[in-house]
Amino acid sequence: MSLENISQAKVFSGWHKQYQHQSSVLNCGMRFAIFLPPNAAQDSPVPILYWLSGLTCSDENFMQKAGAFEAAAKLGIAIVAPDTSPRGEGVADDEAYDLGQGAGFYLNATQQPWAAHYQMYDYIVEELPALIESNFPVSSVKSIAGHSMGGHGALSIGLKNQGSYCSISAFSPISNPMQVPWGQKAFSAYLGTDRDTWKAYDSVELLKRAQAQMPILIDQGDADNFLEQQLKPDALLAAAQQHNSQLQYRSQLGYDHSYYFIASFIAQHLDFHAKHMQAE
Amino acid sequence: MSLENISQAKVFSGWHKQYQHQSSVLNCGMRFAIFLPPNAAQDSPVPILYWLSGLTCSDENFMQKAGAFEAAAKLGIAIVAPDTSPRGEGVADDEAYDLGQGAGFYLNATQQPWAAHYQMYDYIVEELPALIESNFPVSSVKSIAGHSMGGHGALSIGLKNQGSYCSISAFSPISNPMQVPWGQKAFSAYLGTDRDTWKAYDSVELLKRAQAQMPILIDQGDADNFLEQQLKPDALLAAAQQHNSQLQYRSQLGYDHSYYFIASFIAQHLDFHAKHMQAE
Repeated sequence: MSLENISQAKVFSGWHKQYQHQSSVLNCGMRFAIFLPPNAAQDSPVPILYWLSGLTCSDENFMQKAGAFEAAAKLGIAIVAPDTSPRGEGVADDEAYDLGQGAGFYLNATQQPWAAHYQMYDYIVEELPALIESNFPVSSVKSIAGHSMGGHGALSIGLKNQGSYCSISAFSPISNPMQVPWGQKAFSAYLGTDRDTWKAYDSVELLKRAQAQMPILIDQGDADNFLEQQLKPDALLAAAQQHNSQLQYRSQLGYDHSYYFIASFIAQHLDFHAKHMQAE
Repeated sequence: MSLENISQAKVFSGWHKQYQHQSSVLNCGMRFAIFLPPNAAQDSPVPILYWLSGLTCSDENFMQKAGAFEAAAKLGIAIVAPDTSPRGEGVADDEAYDLGQGAGFYLNATQQPWAAHYQMYDYIVEELPALIESNFPVSSVKSIAGHSMGGHGALSIGLKNQGSYCSISAFSPISNPMQVPWGQKAFSAYLGTDRDTWKAYDSVELLKRAQAQMPILIDQGDADNFLEQQLKPDALLAAAQQHNSQLQYRSQLGYDHSYYFIASFIAQHLDFHAKHMQAE
């Protein structure tokens, strides 16, 4: 698999770089961004935080708006931000912002017209880490985080791959997609009407099934317009208690669903991940 | 003058807010953004940093991408980010990115069709501060900063209003607009062909004329694609030496013209301004 570097900028003595590559799993060209801290080198590989973004985002939103690089540079953590879906003219799409391109929901679609390209779960779990680990001065130590739809992605991918990630964190995650409009629309389209197939991608169902083998940190603004209808953190907390999963949930007074909220707490998330990455 | 609040988000325990208002100076509706640190209150007014953005920007670029709020919250500094030109259907424009809307160059245009609205100098120097000081818990202590075209704006406005601003800082400023393509194009259109009228807005000419009465900090990336053709920091440094103006210039190895560069050093600029604001 070959990578084409399409931009690079020095930031906090490290580097932000964007790459294009042909994804065999998604069957289309994809772009991702990586932040490499200043200490990253072939003889001192650094751990990686995978960041999964929310609806409508690309690889750019987090990298431009989260203000994560000062902390990541100090802690010596690389950050990888993939796109949120397959892209391109030949890729199925929908006019709505919450289905199709920009809204892949980090699952493997089984239904047409989506199944031909919408295999974001395999991309994030297998193809992308293999690509990153073979092309950059990084170790195989990794954690995963995300926002909103990407919070759903981080939680469900982390919980489905116990042992692969040191820690999970999320801002304002879609915690229980089976039970909310965003998730029901996407799961119906991508997975079909058999709701049993949805459970494999629902973090509440995954936490009901087994204890999380890694610590989880969630920040949720209490002024988030999507909180009651789309995010359902209470269901996640209840499920986590069933098997004593280690989930820290913080309700943040006055914060909304935006990147201003993420920026305010991302350094704490990086500290959290760094602590658990070092324990590896 | 009435203000309409159109967005607000909590960030680092302070607030980012956007407002619309009718500008009498610019003769059109305008939008600006303000960051208020958590300690801002009617009985403890805070000083203000005015941030002037570069070509194509609105009030949003700096606020979303600079990562300035953690430092501004700690230091207790408000930040105001105006738009970069008058806007709207009735406002003259040009297809080019470097003339017309998004490219006001922080001057008072004398030529048609621009003069009817392009009075950004008076807007930044008079109308906007009056509006801010009468509507927010801020003091009249202020400093000014900017990037690229906004670096030109910060330098020229600061130098033309000795005593009004405690300090000036700039990232990658267009230091000598009279001598570079961006500035010559804009000054010809807005001010006409008489180059003597251009000198009133050229920071090199202003520094040749008199000593700066406030400290100036400039950061310039040495990997900036615009450095040689458009920015001309050497001319600014030479002019500053003529009257022993207090100008600190830092060439930053490997950094480019982007917001990743600004994000890497904005906290140091805020520290610089805070120090000189306190001396007031």
